[in-house]
Amino acid sequence: MRDAYHEELDSIGEGLVDMANRVGSALGRATSALLDADLQLAESVISTHAEVEDLQRDLDDRAVEVLARQQPVATDLRVVVTSLRMSADLERCSVLAQHVAKLARLRYPGKAVPQDLRSTVLEMSQLAQRLMAQAADVLVTRDLEAALQMEQDDDRIDELHRGIFQHLMDDRWHHGVETAVDVTLLGRYYERFADHAVSVARRMVFLVTGEHADGPATTPPATTT
Amino acid sequence: MRDAYHEELDSIGEGLVDMANRVGSALGRATSALLDADLQLAESVISTHAEVEDLQRDLDDRAVEVLARQQPVATDLRVVVTSLRMSADLERCSVLAQHVAKLARLRYPGKAVPQDLRSTVLEMSQLAQRLMAQAADVLVTRDLEAALQMEQDDDRIDELHRGIFQHLMDDRWHHGVETAVDVTLLGRYYERFADHAVSVARRMVFLVTGEHADGPATTPPATTT
Repeated sequence: MRDAYHEELDSIGEGLVDMANRVGSALGRATSALLDADLQLAESVISTHAEVEDLQRDLDDRAVEVLARQQPVATDLRVVVTSLRMSADLERCSVLAQHVAKLARLRYPGKAVPQDLRSTVLEMSQLAQRLMAQAADVLVTRDLEAALQMEQDDDRIDELHRGIFQHLMDDRWHHGVETAVDVTLLGRYYERFADHAVSVARRMVFLVTGEHADGPATTPPATTT
Repeated sequence: MRDAYHEELDSIGEGLVDMANRVGSALGRATSALLDADLQLAESVISTHAEVEDLQRDLDDRAVEVLARQQPVATDLRVVVTSLRMSADLERCSVLAQHVAKLARLRYPGKAVPQDLRSTVLEMSQLAQRLMAQAADVLVTRDLEAALQMEQDDDRIDELHRGIFQHLMDDRWHHGVETAVDVTLLGRYYERFADHAVSVARRMVFLVTGEHADGPATTPPATTT
């Protein structure tokens, strides 16, 4: 049987998985709201952000309490410190999903995404959600192989992001500046969301191996590559 | 005389001030590179990011070592945990300054910012730098009044950010889509930089008072307000 202390660490880990599942789901619903111009769905995503913030605050308070009461060292200490960083990544993803939903709401009853970019945006959203689901898996399984495989999906997101810029710069772009601005911001939101998912997995790699996975999770803006 | 333990905490605090000064300076130089199309200056900003990353890693390692060796409780524990969060804010600001410099490099020998948005971009950059300087001051002085006054400069940045979007949406916009995309991203970089500076100061308020300063540091994208 595990002691109360390790049960608390496990419980914090479960809280992180819960946060990851929620923000992944929020991004999916925000994207549906965006592509279908569904105001009600957009509002629901926006309103659930407060719950994620509460979850984060609760998890962080508990992590700090573990530090104060149990004074962990070595691996246990690293687990707690890493959980604080992961919860920050996940809270940021919730903000990004909210940004997508707010853009859907702003353009309602119109659609922010023109037909010819719909499939690209959908694929970016799906990949970002998949990365978040994989990050949640890695939190549970600590499967380093799975964590490293996430890099491929992240590369694909960067490729799609570059594709959006190429499309915007194309002389045949005829959707005007407002849509160009919207799509530019959307591309950045999905890319950042994916970066944070990868970051969660990388932090787990670091936790298990003590070695930083190669390179920062931060991708340079696609315009510059 | 202070003991070795509190000297280490002070030294971590000084490291954070050093990071804040460096990233504020990096943003100023990146903006000069952007507005003057100065490739050499852009390259120098891009290359200094690695130093900020090293600083962050060093500070975080030392903070975790303090947790492991000294097992602080109460306020001291909060100081160490908060320092980890602040270093993450500051590292992110370094990435954002780098993004500005990379855009300058990408458009060289051209200029990414058209004449009619030059003063707006300059003012956003100056305000963001000022916020970072104030955050550094708050780290030293723990002056809560000063921390709360930063909100005004942050409001002004949000106002400028909204102004950029209004300008982009104006029918008289004649700089094309590429420039619209560049300016959209730049507006976001400066706004996020300022958010992180405000976040550092708010964390200090929380540290001193135990109360969260009102509202999240995260401003919604200016298009949605």
